[in-house]
Amino acid sequence: MKKTQPIGIFDSGIGGTSIFKEIHALLPLEDIIYLADSINAPYGIKSREKIIALSKKNTELLLKNGCKIIVVACNTATTNAIGFLRNNYNVPIIGIEPAIKPAALKTKRKAIGILATKGTLSSELFHKTSGLFAKDIEVIEVIGSGLVEAIEAGKENSASTKKLLEVLLQPMLAKNIDYLVLGCSHYPYLIPILKEILLKDIIIIDSGEAVARQTKFILNSLGLLNEAQKKTSISFYTNKSPEILKHFVPNHPVQYLDF
Amino acid sequence: MKKTQPIGIFDSGIGGTSIFKEIHALLPLEDIIYLADSINAPYGIKSREKIIALSKKNTELLLKNGCKIIVVACNTATTNAIGFLRNNYNVPIIGIEPAIKPAALKTKRKAIGILATKGTLSSELFHKTSGLFAKDIEVIEVIGSGLVEAIEAGKENSASTKKLLEVLLQPMLAKNIDYLVLGCSHYPYLIPILKEILLKDIIIIDSGEAVARQTKFILNSLGLLNEAQKKTSISFYTNKSPEILKHFVPNHPVQYLDF
Repeated sequence: MKKTQPIGIFDSGIGGTSIFKEIHALLPLEDIIYLADSINAPYGIKSREKIIALSKKNTELLLKNGCKIIVVACNTATTNAIGFLRNNYNVPIIGIEPAIKPAALKTKRKAIGILATKGTLSSELFHKTSGLFAKDIEVIEVIGSGLVEAIEAGKENSASTKKLLEVLLQPMLAKNIDYLVLGCSHYPYLIPILKEILLKDIIIIDSGEAVARQTKFILNSLGLLNEAQKKTSISFYTNKSPEILKHFVPNHPVQYLDF
Repeated sequence: MKKTQPIGIFDSGIGGTSIFKEIHALLPLEDIIYLADSINAPYGIKSREKIIALSKKNTELLLKNGCKIIVVACNTATTNAIGFLRNNYNVPIIGIEPAIKPAALKTKRKAIGILATKGTLSSELFHKTSGLFAKDIEVIEVIGSGLVEAIEAGKENSASTKKLLEVLLQPMLAKNIDYLVLGCSHYPYLIPILKEILLKDIIIIDSGEAVARQTKFILNSLGLLNEAQKKTSISFYTNKSPEILKHFVPNHPVQYLDF
């Protein structure tokens, strides 16, 4: 493995671009390849077997393109497929988990909200984390039905998405939460309308910055941080409309690829 | 690389057993090989070239014995040799750094103390961390001259060591610090007498727990966590007196080895 090999990131669609942005900001000298498996979005409603098969396909494509590390920038793929990936491929695999732990440690009102997909909320990994760190805290779980689809359609800022969120968040607004954990890499794009809906003193936490720090830490431990000053290569591939992906990463080249 | 391969730890002597204890507590199913290079202790007063050569020797012995990850349980070896090790060996290398960041984030009195070896305090890595996280904070640095030698001699609890510490800590006691960072893996063994000398409200931080968490995180990311329930093999090797090492790890076998 060489320092100059790229970082590979995949997601069920464009959501993981929120993770990409944190990684690129922290590690500006690293080449990055991003796969948006939008044709199969959302993963959150698929079976575990299907999610594993899709994660395998994405990982193998990234490895074929020389990636030195794989970032699973999708909560649903992390909770369902990360064990499989770690056991079958010889590179570090980083996943994203809802930031239950920091929220549970910081909440003063002893009530936190978590907005995530069905696949994440019903997973064993989520229940383990939640049981470990939030056992004395009320955790109000909300399935974000329809949100991934809205964001994938480029409607992250629309009136209809705001209305949908207002309905979905009712159970949280009824309780006195002080932290809202975003448990899906798509959801950071909802932060502008979330801030309009939520009370001002509710703090929103996503996982992007933590994932970027973890990526840096692992690459550094393996002597694989790219510190060479040169023009970096950032590539985005999608198997659906490049326009939507382009909308979220306007400064980078986006290509269609059949995968 | 296989999950069943051991974790390798080395230190200039017995100090890293404080790190071993944290790793063993967090990862009780992992086999561990520990090298105490006591014949060359203390590293803190040696040249950078010498420290790199010693770190190379220890790492290669651990790799020859099949270690899947190397923990440099010595601050001086970390600050001087970790870049060399990461660039030359194909396994994750974890080092220990003084916990300046958490102390700097938590201090209310804006004054923290750091007790470390000359080699650590004069290193580039230390100055970078200190400049990054503690720029608005008074950092009172004290070189722990003679402390590693006292601990290596099994005198971590003696009246003479307490007297030495009282003299060394004078510059810190004169200032109103609220956190004392232990920047050498030997020093956690001084905590009982440190608590007698320091004011009760001064919080002592060492790096052991953080290193254990990082080791777990990296092994997990690489699919290399050993989760098999079986009798674990814990081996301690020293190139000086086994009695001293035995004194710090009374429940584990200790062997002399010429390395």
